[in-house]
Amino acid sequence: MIFEGSEKKFELTVRDDVNLLDWPESHYAGLVRAANTQILSKIENRHTKAYLLSESSLFVWRNRLTMITCGTTTLVDAALRAFDFLKPEQVEAFFYQRKNEYFPQLQSTDFINDTKKLNARIKGKGFRLGRPDEHHLFLFHSDQFYNAQHDDKTLEVLMYGLQGKARSVFNTTGLDTKTIRLETGVDQIVPGFQVDDFAFSPIGYSLNAIQDDRFYTIHVTPQDESPYVSFETNLTEQNSSPELIQKTLQSVLAVFQPQSFDIIYFDPQTPDRRSSAALSPAVSDYDLRSEILESLSCGYDIQYSHHSQGNVKRTRAHKFKI
Amino acid sequence: MIFEGSEKKFELTVRDDVNLLDWPESHYAGLVRAANTQILSKIENRHTKAYLLSESSLFVWRNRLTMITCGTTTLVDAALRAFDFLKPEQVEAFFYQRKNEYFPQLQSTDFINDTKKLNARIKGKGFRLGRPDEHHLFLFHSDQFYNAQHDDKTLEVLMYGLQGKARSVFNTTGLDTKTIRLETGVDQIVPGFQVDDFAFSPIGYSLNAIQDDRFYTIHVTPQDESPYVSFETNLTEQNSSPELIQKTLQSVLAVFQPQSFDIIYFDPQTPDRRSSAALSPAVSDYDLRSEILESLSCGYDIQYSHHSQGNVKRTRAHKFKI
Repeated sequence: MIFEGSEKKFELTVRDDVNLLDWPESHYAGLVRAANTQILSKIENRHTKAYLLSESSLFVWRNRLTMITCGTTTLVDAALRAFDFLKPEQVEAFFYQRKNEYFPQLQSTDFINDTKKLNARIKGKGFRLGRPDEHHLFLFHSDQFYNAQHDDKTLEVLMYGLQGKARSVFNTTGLDTKTIRLETGVDQIVPGFQVDDFAFSPIGYSLNAIQDDRFYTIHVTPQDESPYVSFETNLTEQNSSPELIQKTLQSVLAVFQPQSFDIIYFDPQTPDRRSSAALSPAVSDYDLRSEILESLSCGYDIQYSHHSQGNVKRTRAHKFKI
Repeated sequence: MIFEGSEKKFELTVRDDVNLLDWPESHYAGLVRAANTQILSKIENRHTKAYLLSESSLFVWRNRLTMITCGTTTLVDAALRAFDFLKPEQVEAFFYQRKNEYFPQLQSTDFINDTKKLNARIKGKGFRLGRPDEHHLFLFHSDQFYNAQHDDKTLEVLMYGLQGKARSVFNTTGLDTKTIRLETGVDQIVPGFQVDDFAFSPIGYSLNAIQDDRFYTIHVTPQDESPYVSFETNLTEQNSSPELIQKTLQSVLAVFQPQSFDIIYFDPQTPDRRSSAALSPAVSDYDLRSEILESLSCGYDIQYSHHSQGNVKRTRAHKFKI
């Protein structure tokens, strides 16, 4: 079965005079509908609302909204819908990103078209990070400086080609979430969080986890035609030291054992430090294939890097059913 | 400017009682029209007709026809048109291949759809060679054993990311073919051939070269959005020794200086040697990233391998015009 795991994502940060948590449920439902996806379940605490969607996740905080969707969803339309609920001057920062897809021919839009629509609503810049014939990330961001908190960091780990136990567990049809948690430890990657997860039929798995204003989310598309897992978390003062980032990364890779992975890392610029050092994770068994660092005019630095197992394996051809 | 360099290709081998060189010109024109491309020029000798097309090339021999097209051409329709001119039992072997594209969303069909159409005319098998998230080749071939001549070998070198002099020459607008030949030596990669070439406006270059029943062809799409060059040649007894293949490969890489390249190599099986050794080109500065070897039921072995420069460069993001 063909299913596009690679996600689109947008992140919207609003001024202090707006409280996104006060939006009526119909607003969130409107975004979800615009993206052509559905709400499966919800968990929340005083700081965070976390919706599990039929294609990925929606997170809401007082001043920020993050929506991630995969498959053939139309996330750009959800972003445009979000702008409808705000005055232009209330938007402080906006990001829209798309990973290069396994099956771009099945998508209803491409990144260039998306940026044209977005740019008509918020002036921005569009980039490709990475060579066009290799793994790469498309990024659009608002073109005004946002003075982000110094601990406002985001880490994404996008993984390709599951191996080992993760591959066999996630490809087993009909498993329930309890079994998946027990067999993989996916709910313990960052311990102590409230967890909400869903096992899709016949295969596929999504997880949202929150603790105060922190979150992590995991989406697994194990199909051999396009094996993909995404992990994303926001980093705060407590967990953004190089040692702790390294530990998180090691935990994620230990669970999924990918053949290769991307790191996408957003780090706020501060007046005294406009450009930050890149994460340089020491990950044994993986070679650094490419690395792009960019200081963005919206107030963040971004790192996009691709890491792959170095050992060449003579593999067999993959036979299609015609 | 966006232009898809990555090509589709089909190769058709017919029984000895058919002479494809005797086909009326209208037959070849019909194939070209079906693919939605145009004939620019033609060279020929006693064994070979070579058409330069607005999107790549068509070669005709007594018992074989090879057509290669890029852009958004519909090559599968040309293959279907070729079957119209033949009785089913006259087809001895058939291959159809597509490299993963830079812009698959701009194509009117994908490989899976193409194979369904082809399989309705000739029973075949479809494969993907290479990981779905990395460089890979799609291949469809007829599912009947063809007893190929032992020197019936084909070498393709597909190159990504031109560098050095090739990048600057081929990205210079308005150059004529004479200047391009002089500056790059592209017409001397295999010396002593009759050459026909074309410089596209504003950039882009194609070359056909023939000598008796031998050919080589080069297509250059230098655009920075999707830098691509293909080189293809048939190997015969005179030039298929490991040393001479190595020499040809070195010459091609020296001209184009790609960041990475694929080797696609077809080698006929013989009764006493069903599976051949792979080409193992010693190419300094390039690492072997992946290698797939497959013995096909149509009588050939295929090697698909991807080779890339190992040195990681911290690169800048590529900014799009919105």
